[in-house]
Amino acid sequence: MTHAAYTIPLADIARHLDVAFSGDGNLPIRGLATLKDAKPDQVAFLANRAYLKDLVKTQAGAVLLHPEHSKSCPVPRLEMDNPYLGYAKLSQLFDPLAALDTPGVHPSAVVAKDATLGADVSIQANAVIASGAVLEDRVVVGPGSVVGADSHLGEATRLHANVTVCHGIVVGKRVILHSGCVIGGDGFGFAHDGAGWHKIAQLGGVILGDDVEVGSCSSIDRGALGDTVIGRDVKIDSQVQIAHNVQIGDHSALAGCVGIAGSTSVGKHCMLGGGVGLSGHLTLCDGVQVTGMSLVTNSIHEPGVYSSGTGAMNNRQWRKNAVRFKQLDEIAKRLSRLEKTAVK
Amino acid sequence: MTHAAYTIPLADIARHLDVAFSGDGNLPIRGLATLKDAKPDQVAFLANRAYLKDLVKTQAGAVLLHPEHSKSCPVPRLEMDNPYLGYAKLSQLFDPLAALDTPGVHPSAVVAKDATLGADVSIQANAVIASGAVLEDRVVVGPGSVVGADSHLGEATRLHANVTVCHGIVVGKRVILHSGCVIGGDGFGFAHDGAGWHKIAQLGGVILGDDVEVGSCSSIDRGALGDTVIGRDVKIDSQVQIAHNVQIGDHSALAGCVGIAGSTSVGKHCMLGGGVGLSGHLTLCDGVQVTGMSLVTNSIHEPGVYSSGTGAMNNRQWRKNAVRFKQLDEIAKRLSRLEKTAVK
Amino acid sequence: MTHAAYTIPLADIARHLDVAFSGDGNLPIRGLATLKDAKPDQVAFLANRAYLKDLVKTQAGAVLLHPEHSKSCPVPRLEMDNPYLGYAKLSQLFDPLAALDTPGVHPSAVVAKDATLGADVSIQANAVIASGAVLEDRVVVGPGSVVGADSHLGEATRLHANVTVCHGIVVGKRVILHSGCVIGGDGFGFAHDGAGWHKIAQLGGVILGDDVEVGSCSSIDRGALGDTVIGRDVKIDSQVQIAHNVQIGDHSALAGCVGIAGSTSVGKHCMLGGGVGLSGHLTLCDGVQVTGMSLVTNSIHEPGVYSSGTGAMNNRQWRKNAVRFKQLDEIAKRLSRLEKTAVK
Repeated sequence: MTHAAYTIPLADIARHLDVAFSGDGNLPIRGLATLKDAKPDQVAFLANRAYLKDLVKTQAGAVLLHPEHSKSCPVPRLEMDNPYLGYAKLSQLFDPLAALDTPGVHPSAVVAKDATLGADVSIQANAVIASGAVLEDRVVVGPGSVVGADSHLGEATRLHANVTVCHGIVVGKRVILHSGCVIGGDGFGFAHDGAGWHKIAQLGGVILGDDVEVGSCSSIDRGALGDTVIGRDVKIDSQVQIAHNVQIGDHSALAGCVGIAGSTSVGKHCMLGGGVGLSGHLTLCDGVQVTGMSLVTNSIHEPGVYSSGTGAMNNRQWRKNAVRFKQLDEIAKRLSRLEKTAVK
Repeated sequence: MTHAAYTIPLADIARHLDVAFSGDGNLPIRGLATLKDAKPDQVAFLANRAYLKDLVKTQAGAVLLHPEHSKSCPVPRLEMDNPYLGYAKLSQLFDPLAALDTPGVHPSAVVAKDATLGADVSIQANAVIASGAVLEDRVVVGPGSVVGADSHLGEATRLHANVTVCHGIVVGKRVILHSGCVIGGDGFGFAHDGAGWHKIAQLGGVILGDDVEVGSCSSIDRGALGDTVIGRDVKIDSQVQIAHNVQIGDHSALAGCVGIAGSTSVGKHCMLGGGVGLSGHLTLCDGVQVTGMSLVTNSIHEPGVYSSGTGAMNNRQWRKNAVRFKQLDEIAKRLSRLEKTAVK
Repeated sequence: MTHAAYTIPLADIARHLDVAFSGDGNLPIRGLATLKDAKPDQVAFLANRAYLKDLVKTQAGAVLLHPEHSKSCPVPRLEMDNPYLGYAKLSQLFDPLAALDTPGVHPSAVVAKDATLGADVSIQANAVIASGAVLEDRVVVGPGSVVGADSHLGEATRLHANVTVCHGIVVGKRVILHSGCVIGGDGFGFAHDGAGWHKIAQLGGVILGDDVEVGSCSSIDRGALGDTVIGRDVKIDSQVQIAHNVQIGDHSALAGCVGIAGSTSVGKHCMLGGGVGLSGHLTLCDGVQVTGMSLVTNSIHEPGVYSSGTGAMNNRQWRKNAVRFKQLDEIAKRLSRLEKTAVK
C-alpha cells in the first residue's frame, strides 16, 4: 500500500469535485479507502447498493454517495449522481506517482542529438531516445524505456519503466504505457515458397490516440503496409496482443489477455472481457461486448453481448459431458429420426 | 545445455541429501541427467514407474530412487522415499547461475543516494534503484532491471534481467522474479461518465510473500485501494496476468498464461493449469485444481478438480458438433417433448 | 506509417525479383501499398482473387501479379507465379530498419571483457553483453537488451530493444528477437515435499535454429535437464509461451498467445492458431494445424486440421446452451432410453 505524503482539506476536495459537502471543511483527508476500511482521515464511496451495510457502520471522514443514500450515512457526505466517477477523480489527487518524477534528463539516459524535447520533459535513468524522436511537453520516459527513431510522443504522455516504443510510432497526448509493453514490434507476416517462410517486412506503423492506456507486458504490432490504429480513450489491460493493422474504435476497453488477430476492426465503445480472442479480418460494430475467454470467428453487426465456451464444473461431470460433445451431431440426428418415428 | 564447472563426490551428494548410498563415495559427479541420457559422471533419478525400463539399462554414475526399486538398479544407488524431491535438492548444487553473479554495484547501475543496500548485494549493469528503495542482504538485481521508489526487496531475493518492480512494492525473502516480469503496474480501473473513461489511480501496492517465484513476462498489478497479495511459496509461471486486489493463498501454483481478474481470492494449495481464466470477485477455497484453459465464472467452495471446455478433434467433425452446440437448448426441449409423447 | 528515404527504379526491382516487367524501367518506386491505396510511385500486388476489383482501378506504378491476370491490369506489370512471395521479397528493400542501425559498440553499452564480438556488430545504447558471450558477424543488439553469460548469437541475428537472452543460450543465424521477449528464463519445475515446493534448478538451455523469429513479449523457457529446441525457420508470434523441453520442428508457425506446456513435441510444418494451448508431454506429428483457441490434450498422429471449443453467439442464446452442456451426458442417456422405448 502506498500513501500520499500530504493531506487535503475536505472543503478543497468538495471544490475539486464541484459538489456540496456536509461537516467540517477543514477536516484533513490523507487518502481514500473502502467504506469498511476507511479511517476518519480518509474518504470512502458508495457506488453499489451491496455495500449499504458497510455505509451505516463506516468510520470514514466523509463518504461520496448519491443523495438518495444520504440519510443512511453516519458521517459527513459528498453528494454526486455518479459517486464512482467522483472516486476516480479523487484518486488522482492522492496518487504519489507524479511526485516521484525527476524533471530533466538523467545523466545515464542516452538521447540522440537530433531528438526534440519539449518543456518539462522527464527522461529517467538509462532510458534511450533514438534519432529523430519528438517528445512533446511534460512527457515522462521511465527508467530503461526506449523510444525508437522518428517516433512522436504527445504532450504529457508517460512511459513507465522498461517500455519499448519502436521506430516510426505516433503516440497521442496523455497516453500511459505501462512497464514491459511494446508498441510497434513487427506484425506476423510471412510468404511461403513451398519449402519455408519469407519474412514480409512490416512497413506500417502504430498510431495511438489521445488518452490511450496500455497495460504491463502488452504488445501492439506495427502494420504490414498501413498502420495499426488505436482510437482515442481506448483502454487496454495487461498481457494483451494486438496484431498488425487492427483498428480499435474510440472509448473501447480490452481486459487482460485479449488477443486480436490481424486486420480486424473493433468499433467504438466496445468491451472485450479477459482472454477474449478475435480472429483476423473481422468487423465488430460499435457497442459490442464479448464475455471472458470467448472466441469470435465471425463479424458482428449488431450491438449486444456475445459469448462462447462453457463454464467450469466438477471434472468428473465435465468428462462425461465433454465426451458427449464429440457425439453431439450424432445425438441431434438420432433425435430427428426418433421424432419422425413418433409422428408415425 | 549449461554445465557446472566442477564435480562433487558421490559421498558429498549423499550427505547433502542425508541419505545412504552404495558404491564408491569418491566418484566425481558433474551433474544430473535422465536415466536414459546419464553418463557415468551424472546422477539420474526414478520418480515414475514408467521409466523402470530405462532404469535397468542406465549408465548413470548413481540413481536416486525409492528403496523398492533398488534391486532393479544396475548402478550405485541413493535411496529416498521421494526421489523427485531429491532431484530438486540436487539440481540446486549444479546450477551455474549463482557463480555468475558479480558482487557489488556495477558502475553503470544507477542507485539513488537514499536507497538502502544490505550486505553482499549485487546490482548488475544498467540496473536502476530508485529513491527510498530497500534491498536486504544478498539481493541480486539483474542487468536492466528497475526497482521503483520505496520498494522493499527481502533477503536473498533475485531479479533476473529487465525485470520491473514498480514503486511501493513489498517483496519477501528468497523471491525469484524472472526476466521481463512486471510487479506493480496499474490495475485496470476506470469510471465511465457516459461519454468516456476516467482513470482510477491505483493507490494500493503488491505484497509478494517469501519464496514466491514469478515467471518471464508475467504481470502482477497493484491494488486499487488495498494491496494485491501473493502468499508464501506461491509459484507463478510465465505469461501470467494477475489483476488488482487478487489474493493468492500460500503454496498455490499457477501455470503459464493463467489470467485472474480483479479482487478474486484463490485459496492455499490450489493449482491452476495453463491458460486458466478466473473471473473477478470470486472465491476459490483451499485445495482447488482447475485443468488447463478452463474458465471459472463462479466461486468454488469444495476442494477438487474443475474443468470446462471441450478437447480438440478433427476439424470436420468439430464443425458439425459446434453447430449443434448452438442448437443445444432446442435439442433438449425437443427431447423433453418426445419423452412426454412416449409416455402417452 | 514509416517510409524508406530513397527510391528504386522499376527495372532494378524486376531484376531483384528475377522477373520480366512492362512499362518504363526508370520509374522511381518509393515503396509498397495495396492495390487500392497505391500511388504512381508505389508497387502493389494481387495475391487473392477477391482484390481483382481493385486491380482494374489501381493507380499503382506497377503491380506484382500472376500472368493470368495481366490482361486486367491497367498499369505496368511484374509477373510471377507467386506474387505474395514477390511482395515479401520487395518489402525487404523498403524496410527503413537496417538504415537505423549504428555500427559499433555504443559507449553506454556494457560489454564484458571476455565477450567475443564478430565483424560489424552493432551493440546499441545501454545494452549489456555478459561474460563469455559470443556474437558472430553483423549481430545487432538493440537498446536495453541483455545477452547472458556464455550465450552464442549466430551471424546477422538481431535483438530489438529490451530483449533478454539468458545465460547459456544458443541462437542461430539470421534470428530475429522482438522487443520484450525472453529466451531462457527458468522452466516451471518444483517438487512437493507434502508441505510446500522445492525449486528444481533448470539446468538445460534453449537452442534456436537459423531463421527463427520470436515476437514481442514472448517467452521460451530453458530446459530442466536437456534443452528446449526450436527448429530452423520456426516463426513465433507475440505473447507466446513455450515451456521447458518443448521441441518445435522446422518451418512451423505459432500465432499470438499460443501456450505450449512442458516436454511437448510439435512436428515440422505445423501451424498453431492464436491462443492455442497444448498440454505437456504430447507429440504432434508433422503437418498438423490447430485452429484458434483450441486446447489439445492428446497427441496427434495424423496430419490435418484440429479444433475445439464453440463459436461466439448472442449471450442470451449462449446462456441457455451452456446450461444444457452441463446436462449433456444426461440428455444422451435419456435419448438412448427413448430409442429403446421406440423400438418396442
